[in-house]
Amino acid sequence: MRLGILGGGQLGRMLALAAHPLGVRPTVLDPAAEACAGHVCPHVRGEFDDFRALYELAQASDVVTYEFENVPVESARWLAERVPVFPPPRALEVSQDRVVEKTFLNSLGVPTPPFAAVETRAEFDAAVTAIGLPAVLKTRRFGYDGKGQAVIRTPADADHAWETLGGRPLILEGFVPFDRELSILAVRGRDGSIGTYPLVENEHRDGILHRSVAPAGDLGEELGERAAEYAARILTELDYVGVLAVEWFQDGPRLLANEMAPRVHNSGHWSIEGAHCSQFENHVRAVCGLPLGRCDAAGWSAMFNFIGTVPAAAAVLADPAAHLHHYGKADRPGRKVGHVTLRAGGADELAEKLPGWSAAFDRPRAGG
Amino acid sequence: MRLGILGGGQLGRMLALAAHPLGVRPTVLDPAAEACAGHVCPHVRGEFDDFRALYELAQASDVVTYEFENVPVESARWLAERVPVFPPPRALEVSQDRVVEKTFLNSLGVPTPPFAAVETRAEFDAAVTAIGLPAVLKTRRFGYDGKGQAVIRTPADADHAWETLGGRPLILEGFVPFDRELSILAVRGRDGSIGTYPLVENEHRDGILHRSVAPAGDLGEELGERAAEYAARILTELDYVGVLAVEWFQDGPRLLANEMAPRVHNSGHWSIEGAHCSQFENHVRAVCGLPLGRCDAAGWSAMFNFIGTVPAAAAVLADPAAHLHHYGKADRPGRKVGHVTLRAGGADELAEKLPGWSAAFDRPRAGG
Ligand SMILES: Nc1ncnc2c1ncn2[C@@H]1O[C@H](COP(=O)(O)OP(=O)(O)OP(=O)(O)O)[C@@H](O)[C@H]1O
Ligand SMILES: Nc1ncnc2c1ncn2[C@@H]1O[C@H](COP(=O)(O)OP(=O)(O)OP(=O)(O)O)[C@@H](O)[C@H]1O
Repeated sequence: MRLGILGGGQLGRMLALAAHPLGVRPTVLDPAAEACAGHVCPHVRGEFDDFRALYELAQASDVVTYEFENVPVESARWLAERVPVFPPPRALEVSQDRVVEKTFLNSLGVPTPPFAAVETRAEFDAAVTAIGLPAVLKTRRFGYDGKGQAVIRTPADADHAWETLGGRPLILEGFVPFDRELSILAVRGRDGSIGTYPLVENEHRDGILHRSVAPAGDLGEELGERAAEYAARILTELDYVGVLAVEWFQDGPRLLANEMAPRVHNSGHWSIEGAHCSQFENHVRAVCGLPLGRCDAAGWSAMFNFIGTVPAAAAVLADPAAHLHHYGKADRPGRKVGHVTLRAGGADELAEKLPGWSAAFDRPRAGG
Repeated sequence: MRLGILGGGQLGRMLALAAHPLGVRPTVLDPAAEACAGHVCPHVRGEFDDFRALYELAQASDVVTYEFENVPVESARWLAERVPVFPPPRALEVSQDRVVEKTFLNSLGVPTPPFAAVETRAEFDAAVTAIGLPAVLKTRRFGYDGKGQAVIRTPADADHAWETLGGRPLILEGFVPFDRELSILAVRGRDGSIGTYPLVENEHRDGILHRSVAPAGDLGEELGERAAEYAARILTELDYVGVLAVEWFQDGPRLLANEMAPRVHNSGHWSIEGAHCSQFENHVRAVCGLPLGRCDAAGWSAMFNFIGTVPAAAAVLADPAAHLHHYGKADRPGRKVGHVTLRAGGADELAEKLPGWSAAFDRPRAGG
């Protein structure tokens, strides 16, 4: 079986590393000569709307998937006429636009923060009145790592936000005074079977994921079951195949969906060591029509992102519980260049070690 | 860090797959165009005594290792003048010749079956008299998967064995009426630190490893400690760096070394999922001068080799506890083309499931 992957960044790379042992031969398509997935499998160079490159990928693949949700939908549909494409292109469409996405989620009974589509200043003012302050103004499309957003607490903030973001299709969301952020990874096979990883607790810094703890602590059973049930509704409605991530705000007993990603997700990296079958392997299994692996956690894990630079491997691995993932990318401020996962044998052990680990991995240390 | 690997078979492939996440960039050298490690990293094509190819590998590497023990010692020494080579070439020398190997082991107080070097028919007859029957006649060099051996139970067997094997440098070993075969994997870092995986129980079929169970059951503490202590003696004496395997015969309370392999080993494949840090990752860590990872088992595992052909992935993965490793090699009778590792949460669960698994993986089923 040959697997084409649109995108050759770290997610494509970790998908490719998971594909090889299954006897699945990956090829990535990426415009960048230095795409880091190209270190571990063949790499077709081309833009994601370059039909010659897409054709070349289709020729090299029995099934195609993608590592990011901003793949042009036309490219995915064009490919899907030639070779099976999973997750289905409709999942791309839904998740590329925050208004479409939240409308879709609400239609399935999955709660989200209140929101309104905003094009003109008049619509913006009406939305502020309807939703109230504080609120968050965001671009509808192509936002990532918190870029293209502004929090609005006062009327002056509103003017300022409009100056910065106005003129594009926008969404205004009610600001959720969340207790914490959670996410769930779920996977659906070609045969419709569904697996769900445990809820993860995520902490962001400067709009970028900093730390994930899995399984999230202090949950009670009900919250995890509810998140899994919501994820299953989404998977089923989209006739989805592959791994899907849903990010949540927890506000007391409420669970509000922030966004979904039709792909493997940064908040699932812990699963490489922390689950019986990783999100990467399960995504490959799903899109290739293989039986799914176990999604349950094996012990307790904490994952820390390395942003900008990877600390010296010897420093990271000084803790024998550490698993280093270096993406083989060049250093650049704000770029995700690697992560470390630390495992503990029990929830108490994790809770005990977490402050020390957090201190150690708060910011990259010198060295390479 | 760039790692050169002599040999591009499944061991080189699994080393390369373990190297990437550490930020270590592997390159393999192998004469075969279709070497399966070449799917996952750059591949220099050349014979192991082709100095142009060796030069190319040295240029592409900060450190060099090997995946098999029949690397020409001169090639290893030539490389070692240009770039660090681990394990040390002396380990190759010792393990390439069964007489040198057993003499070395005995010199460290590590017991082996009784043995004698045999060149002539007169020496052979004298050895049979000294050691007694049954015994095993083996070529001193280049044996693998039980090839180049004959068991001798009667004087007629002796004549027959001599006809088949005579004329080459040979070894006669006393036949050990072993209860079972065990092996131990140990690793030593550049800083001299040592880690030891638990003892593994191995079952051979037609001279080829069929199944490994880790940790081996019914051991008592003492046997495991003794094997670890013997391995540590070998590692220290050779100023060894990397993973070393030692195969044992257990005969009641006795532990007799059969052979050692200065490399990652088939009986350590379970460690990819069954230990906190796999033999492949620990070998890469060791030769690259990084801290070692944890060698203790995470649960209980059974590994089955696929010989000749890999069963259909869907059939193997039908058991959610199964982890497939397809080497991406062409099918060929007698060839190691993949393995599966099955994990259980406890020793009892493993014991319960083992008969079923053994039945399922006894011989490859149809399909690809
Ligand atoms: N409605 C909201 N209420 C409160 N906080 C919010 C809200 N929307 C976003 N945030 C905060 O901003 C962060 C980034 O928001 P969002 O996930 O929409 O951005 P993004 O650019 O799509 O990021 P990602 O890289 O996760 O896709 C959230 O993780 C959360 O901390
Ligand atoms: N002295 C002995 N007494 C009893 N059985 C033996 C003896 N030597 C070898 N055997 C049996 O034959 C098998 C293969 O022997 P050995 O390990 O020497 O062969 P090899 O060709 O070097 O195999 P490998 O592929 O493991 O390197 C052993 O696993 C064991 O089952």
